[in-house]
Amino acid sequence: MALPKQSEDFPAWYQEVVKQAELAEPSLARGTMVIKPYGYAIWEAIQRAVDDRIKATGHQNLYFPLFIPYRLLEKEAEHVEGFAPEVAVVTHAGGKELEEPLVIRPTSETLIWDTYAKWIQSYRDLPLLYNQWANVVRWELRPRLFLRTTEFLWQEGHTAHETEGEAVAETLRIVDEVYRDAIESVLAIPVRDGRKSAAERFAGAVETYTLEALMRDRKALQAGTSHYLGQNFARAYGVRFLGRDGEMEHAYATSWGVSTRLVGGVIMAHGDDRGLRLPPRLAPIQAVVVPIYRTDEERGEVLRAAEQLVEGLSRVRAHVDDREELRPGFKFNDWELRGVPLRVELGPRDLAAGTATLVRRDTGEKEQASLERAGGRIDELLAEIQEALFADARRFLDDHTFRPESYDELRGLLEDPGGFVVAPWCGSEECETTVKTDTKATIRYLTRERRPVDGRCIVDGRPAREEAAWAVAY
Amino acid sequence: MALPKQSEDFPAWYQEVVKQAELAEPSLARGTMVIKPYGYAIWEAIQRAVDDRIKATGHQNLYFPLFIPYRLLEKEAEHVEGFAPEVAVVTHAGGKELEEPLVIRPTSETLIWDTYAKWIQSYRDLPLLYNQWANVVRWELRPRLFLRTTEFLWQEGHTAHETEGEAVAETLRIVDEVYRDAIESVLAIPVRDGRKSAAERFAGAVETYTLEALMRDRKALQAGTSHYLGQNFARAYGVRFLGRDGEMEHAYATSWGVSTRLVGGVIMAHGDDRGLRLPPRLAPIQAVVVPIYRTDEERGEVLRAAEQLVEGLSRVRAHVDDREELRPGFKFNDWELRGVPLRVELGPRDLAAGTATLVRRDTGEKEQASLERAGGRIDELLAEIQEALFADARRFLDDHTFRPESYDELRGLLEDPGGFVVAPWCGSEECETTVKTDTKATIRYLTRERRPVDGRCIVDGRPAREEAAWAVAY
Repeated sequence: MALPKQSEDFPAWYQEVVKQAELAEPSLARGTMVIKPYGYAIWEAIQRAVDDRIKATGHQNLYFPLFIPYRLLEKEAEHVEGFAPEVAVVTHAGGKELEEPLVIRPTSETLIWDTYAKWIQSYRDLPLLYNQWANVVRWELRPRLFLRTTEFLWQEGHTAHETEGEAVAETLRIVDEVYRDAIESVLAIPVRDGRKSAAERFAGAVETYTLEALMRDRKALQAGTSHYLGQNFARAYGVRFLGRDGEMEHAYATSWGVSTRLVGGVIMAHGDDRGLRLPPRLAPIQAVVVPIYRTDEERGEVLRAAEQLVEGLSRVRAHVDDREELRPGFKFNDWELRGVPLRVELGPRDLAAGTATLVRRDTGEKEQASLERAGGRIDELLAEIQEALFADARRFLDDHTFRPESYDELRGLLEDPGGFVVAPWCGSEECETTVKTDTKATIRYLTRERRPVDGRCIVDGRPAREEAAWAVAY
Repeated sequence: MALPKQSEDFPAWYQEVVKQAELAEPSLARGTMVIKPYGYAIWEAIQRAVDDRIKATGHQNLYFPLFIPYRLLEKEAEHVEGFAPEVAVVTHAGGKELEEPLVIRPTSETLIWDTYAKWIQSYRDLPLLYNQWANVVRWELRPRLFLRTTEFLWQEGHTAHETEGEAVAETLRIVDEVYRDAIESVLAIPVRDGRKSAAERFAGAVETYTLEALMRDRKALQAGTSHYLGQNFARAYGVRFLGRDGEMEHAYATSWGVSTRLVGGVIMAHGDDRGLRLPPRLAPIQAVVVPIYRTDEERGEVLRAAEQLVEGLSRVRAHVDDREELRPGFKFNDWELRGVPLRVELGPRDLAAGTATLVRRDTGEKEQASLERAGGRIDELLAEIQEALFADARRFLDDHTFRPESYDELRGLLEDPGGFVVAPWCGSEECETTVKTDTKATIRYLTRERRPVDGRCIVDGRPAREEAAWAVAY
């Protein structure tokens, strides 16, 4: 079935791509989803990209339980206020009512910091640089596959440090060396980063750093966050250590996460009217060989050549589409929908000429390559496609970042064409709320460093304190 | 702190190894555990070994939700009877009481087969060869770290097939090509396999195949199971397909899983009075270099040489223990406790002689190797240790497998020394219960193939129908 046009109905396009490319589908419990094999393979590639970088920066994985006693959640005041309305609660187990209800983790700061109180006694125990891959549950009233689901998969890093300086440096290292690097170099999605405003900050954080990407409908997607938590959780859960100076002090905390929402980001940052366009470094199948034949004899010859070609591609995740009952044209569309970066067409005429036809998913460009050289050329093209998708998305992001002169212009730009609209802001929650009421846009990020800003607030004309980037967001 | 002697108090030894080697600790919610970084690294290595083989045999990963509506659980009669008493139930979420309670998956057959009903229409849709890595919850009254926890991590495979023959072949392929191969060649634990008796079968299965290992206390551990489910779940959840003959038929099912319990198996199959003994292919650290020095100058020289040595070990997971505040003797004990297969001692005398001292964790054997040849020798020794641990465990298993002539002898052997006791069985649940009452032993496995058995039931003397292996088990 044809996809809705992306430019005409983006939400319908998204929904149909997720369905037709067999990425995910809704499950029975409210807001939950089944992640289907192709969607899960994309998630596994994202996991590998992020996990490799988490480990390369000195972190270790571990695992904390799904269940958090309700009383633990209540200890950090802002945190419980932020999460209590969203939690799912187990009241019965083993055939009995529980004496104390258990919360299913919406995030694990509470249980982890309660545990760190046992693990941290002295500065010698610090830093703790830990991460877990886990499922979390936050009750969603308007779920959307990958973007907002009741249960989602993510990693959550939780580190403890001796000083504020170390903890802040950790928070930013995650932004730069883990998330930005993985998202830009593997997912090929360019991101802006900065601080969140107080209203958009993680419940319990001193400072939330965010990475923000722009989707093809010019709405922003929060791709990852890294929080500097100060001593808030250490105070709430009694995590004190003997410092180098012989004094007892509360530890400094960070936490940071990316989730299956990134799969939604890949779909919406790169997709086009034909479906997904997957960056080669992320794609479960990087090159698909579609054999073309009329007779059984031709079929045998072409399939043999296809298998031979694929065997030569040791570094490429390649697949031969040998489904008998389907015509080549159907297969072309099917693999385009699934975003496979490179299609290799192989027919009797190609064989006679000793060539194959290579077709790029990103541009549709076709070329002939001799069968001997095909392997090398496929490597080159995959590298080019990876670069081209990133450059495409980078251009789109730059073309949709605006600096209006007036509040009217800001409103107009957020309305049409949409994108990031960057302007001075006085720092007041009133002005933030005004923009949200008028345009649905929120402040996606403030400049990463706090620094003096010239000019006047784009909303109320008072002296500016921050430079803010607004966008309508997922 | 010294460990309790394994031979004197195995349960205390187990508990202390888990604690002192920092593998896991109990968490707040009943029966849950925190898997600490070293324990989790072992689990990650097990996951890699199993996942590689799951994919190599043609399966794909996907992900089904944590939550199952209660009514779904009730559709397969035996299944609900088996699991309903153990489930945890969410009754409140998003600040409200739910209209229908949600069960936290104790295993996912119910939700998966309800979903397969949408995915399977024709024989062309078969087989479905899917697996997921997930957490599951079964309320445990007597929890034990890794072995029996309320929440545990596992993989669960769920496949659907056109014919009984294919489904049975799949069930056995998992036993042979995935589980046995991973457990024997990577975890170095020899396993016996066979069928479960009706009493020990998975709730809802036609046949449960099991892999059983023997721990150093001569108790059996179920290391993995693979179930042939027949058409039971397809009938309960309405999964019918159009067959090649044009008739509608119910699909044939399998399911199979291994869990974090395998970490407990590694501890108990290989550990000794000094702590863990990890097989090299599983060990997070395969070789640890302990520098030995008296002066700061010596320290600098020895550490430089240690780093150089480790840089040359590109295929080995090596670590230099450069902790300043600890003496070498403490470090030796510490790494022995953690089961690192090979210790490399490097001191000024070694440097002067151009050698290093290599010490095997499994046997305690020491040897000198020239620094130029150390890399190659370490590779050889790691391969030898892998083999030796398996051979050790194989010998222990064989030495503790008995064929008694009488019921009294069976009882005596199960009492002392313990192990697998193999004997003819009439097939009656009465005799099975008698043995359990008299000895606490259960039937761990029956011969894999059903075949005629000579002789008489070891319990009641009636004609035998099966050959059964009894053991006291975890």
